[in-house]
Amino acid sequence: MTEYKFKFSILSLPWLLMFLVSCVYATITPRLGVVERTPTKNLNAKLARASKGRLKTFYYAQTLDHFNYRPDSYTTFQQRYMMNSKHWAGANTSSPILVYFGAEAPIDNDVENVGFLNSYAPELNALIVFIEHRYYGKSMPFGSFEEAYSNTSTLGYFNSAQALADYAEVLVSLKKNLSAESSPVIVIGGSYGGMLASWFRLKYPHIGLGALASSAPILYFEGLTPHEQYYLIATKDYKEASMNCYNTIRQSWSKIDKIASKSDGLSLLSQKFKICNPINASSELKDQLERMYTSAAQYDKPPIYPVKMICDAIDVASKRTTDILSRILAGVVAFKGNKKCYDLNQIITEADLGWRWQTCTDLVIPMGREHDNTMFPISPFILKDLTESCQAVFGVDVTPRPHWIVTEFGGHGIKNVLKKFGSNIIFSNGLRDPYSGGGVLQNISNSVVAILTTNGSHTLDLLTPSKDDPKWLVGMRASEISIVKGWIAEYYAMLRS
Amino acid sequence: MTEYKFKFSILSLPWLLMFLVSCVYATITPRLGVVERTPTKNLNAKLARASKGRLKTFYYAQTLDHFNYRPDSYTTFQQRYMMNSKHWAGANTSSPILVYFGAEAPIDNDVENVGFLNSYAPELNALIVFIEHRYYGKSMPFGSFEEAYSNTSTLGYFNSAQALADYAEVLVSLKKNLSAESSPVIVIGGSYGGMLASWFRLKYPHIGLGALASSAPILYFEGLTPHEQYYLIATKDYKEASMNCYNTIRQSWSKIDKIASKSDGLSLLSQKFKICNPINASSELKDQLERMYTSAAQYDKPPIYPVKMICDAIDVASKRTTDILSRILAGVVAFKGNKKCYDLNQIITEADLGWRWQTCTDLVIPMGREHDNTMFPISPFILKDLTESCQAVFGVDVTPRPHWIVTEFGGHGIKNVLKKFGSNIIFSNGLRDPYSGGGVLQNISNSVVAILTTNGSHTLDLLTPSKDDPKWLVGMRASEISIVKGWIAEYYAMLRS
Repeated sequence: MTEYKFKFSILSLPWLLMFLVSCVYATITPRLGVVERTPTKNLNAKLARASKGRLKTFYYAQTLDHFNYRPDSYTTFQQRYMMNSKHWAGANTSSPILVYFGAEAPIDNDVENVGFLNSYAPELNALIVFIEHRYYGKSMPFGSFEEAYSNTSTLGYFNSAQALADYAEVLVSLKKNLSAESSPVIVIGGSYGGMLASWFRLKYPHIGLGALASSAPILYFEGLTPHEQYYLIATKDYKEASMNCYNTIRQSWSKIDKIASKSDGLSLLSQKFKICNPINASSELKDQLERMYTSAAQYDKPPIYPVKMICDAIDVASKRTTDILSRILAGVVAFKGNKKCYDLNQIITEADLGWRWQTCTDLVIPMGREHDNTMFPISPFILKDLTESCQAVFGVDVTPRPHWIVTEFGGHGIKNVLKKFGSNIIFSNGLRDPYSGGGVLQNISNSVVAILTTNGSHTLDLLTPSKDDPKWLVGMRASEISIVKGWIAEYYAMLRS
Repeated sequence: MTEYKFKFSILSLPWLLMFLVSCVYATITPRLGVVERTPTKNLNAKLARASKGRLKTFYYAQTLDHFNYRPDSYTTFQQRYMMNSKHWAGANTSSPILVYFGAEAPIDNDVENVGFLNSYAPELNALIVFIEHRYYGKSMPFGSFEEAYSNTSTLGYFNSAQALADYAEVLVSLKKNLSAESSPVIVIGGSYGGMLASWFRLKYPHIGLGALASSAPILYFEGLTPHEQYYLIATKDYKEASMNCYNTIRQSWSKIDKIASKSDGLSLLSQKFKICNPINASSELKDQLERMYTSAAQYDKPPIYPVKMICDAIDVASKRTTDILSRILAGVVAFKGNKKCYDLNQIITEADLGWRWQTCTDLVIPMGREHDNTMFPISPFILKDLTESCQAVFGVDVTPRPHWIVTEFGGHGIKNVLKKFGSNIIFSNGLRDPYSGGGVLQNISNSVVAILTTNGSHTLDLLTPSKDDPKWLVGMRASEISIVKGWIAEYYAMLRS
């Protein structure tokens, strides 16, 4: 990911700093984060990267605005997609197409780490396609990131409905050009990309035969899920790892505040936590810790299991000291490595800014903590605060539309709605993933099904398989591909009849 | 309908005249025409009008652009809808809501003539809602017709995807405000409104429990239906009425051209056909005749059956004269009444212009006659001609998107696609309606069904029932409401379980 370059107008440095320093953290929706970067020493990732050599890159002249006929709407931009036809049976064979929907990041990282398609393409004789989401990576309207993100008039076209229509256009064109009109298309995505995959099956069933929606919190929208669900699950993860760990973390926030309230308190905290650039408010430290805990929970994956790693360190420290903050520091050291100092300044990537735009417009995910029922401090979701912080970043003419996703894609009574409508969707979730709180966790019908793993975390199933994978993860993927094969077989039977 | 007032910029008189005079008729998609105006002497229509007194008018502050976050997108306009709660069981009772989707006309005419909702509301204890389509009637963005239609930048928001989202927003808001969240919503529409109804069930199943799509040619789009299907069915109608009538009409075009080619030919034709303002080209007469024949076929309804009326007159005339054009004139007199002269100048209404915009943007219905297999002259559909004529009317920055509807809503292999996806849609068609050629004429699944009447025409089932209705029409409506009741019963059973 390219680092954010501070080149453009509205999003100038002072604004951004103001935003970073002053925003209530809870109003910043955590990046759903398609998949975590896999460490380069992972052999399977290297294998996946090697196969990347066989992926060819293409660009589609994408319509800027599918739902408008103003002169600007006809403008096109180059949308990047990649294909690997090594395993594909070829044109006019009705062989399947596995399509990965890019989410809130450049597609490059997914191409490296999402091994699901590569793993099953050979036995399906499938074509592999990765499509990048508009306004990320190289799929930038208006020619460049700087132009695309320069103001709300250029950013306005950046939303999930347009992205779904992009995918529809690319796939229709691609199938036609490859003489693959009768090829069944299975769409696959993780996290926000998983939402897109499930919504695509619901909105474009004539293009996507089925969807694998991994860790897709499609119910984390207005009125559907308690705001604190994300944090309740993260809390459960820590409780399960160790009650001492949970208690230590839960007690730490007031300790931090107590020290911060002293005249030299911020300096003391900066020293205690070895912070490179001394903090100006205790919230900087608390936000950083919160991010660490939630990230560890979201990506609590084998073989490391970072929640256990943090808690083990806290538990060991608890044996040698009664000082809560020393215990907390032990957790930081375990998670981040033993460093001379810890840099609290986050690098804001282009993709971070893109996701921020999305959560400031249609993807209003109301996460917050109204009650003292998690291990985190109370921090309610307040729409007004979100709006203000969005306007501080993007200008006063942007206003979140919290009702929109539920109006456009539904959610209320989803079981009743989809019991007799829709088909061929897998909602997969790892129950340690805090985002699973907004996921579909029950079977809805014969072919709209939930696959759950008790010990799984965010989008684990999509990662490149490893020989060290636990049995439940191997089994999860096997179930998924078996269901997908069933859809394809049923489709072929229908074609023949 | 307000007459078109020639007040605004691009659409100035010279352009319009150029458009009217020079356009190849085949490139102008006939108005789908929700329902024909019912003569005022019809008692049932009077009854329907009386009930109009109980309809209350409301306005919803509608989002101008649902799929964009540019500053302009947030603008709202007043969207008109009407409700009649006389039969409704009220809030918190889960009583049904019957919703009529306005199409390419002000809603007023539909409120008068669409009696289907009024007829069945009492036995269903249903709330009746009529919603007007954006850019028609009083639901005009930018404050007025003149502003809304002044250029492509203001017209750009005028398309079917935005209209569907409008209906979604109105219904979500309305159900909430009425404490009717659990009320099943049945959406009903005719012609283009029928397309909208079926698409709504497919795209917004969480809002619409089921759809009655009357005479909805959702398959009359690119690559789905032969271009001449509309004209083939009209031809069949005339053949069935009388082979002599069909032959007379079929032979008449060359007769007209032959006379027109003479030095005083156009004058002769004007006299012969009693045209008020002499014609400047034979196409003016031929277009007018074609419009008469197709309109008679589309609205070939009891008790008059205009196709038979025209053909009877032609057949009677055929006994007294061998002159083809005298026979044709007899048909005109029968259809239009015996007038001193016939005015060929069409009044262009606001709604006509709205429909023209829609067929110039997303609703590209490729109607034309490539072969000499109808009773009409050859007149192929040529996209380039359509584009040119659209640009002549609306400006060079509008370009039809012929692929869009099929990408957005599907159509290819609809039976396979919807066999295992979607539910609760009735596609009703009268097989004399030329637009039935683009309709869904076969059952797709248990609950996505086709209801056909051999002698029916365009959107007959939606009209206010009359005691003179033929049995097949009474039966058609009874089948429809019986199916709708089944959906509602099934929904209630699901609510209870």
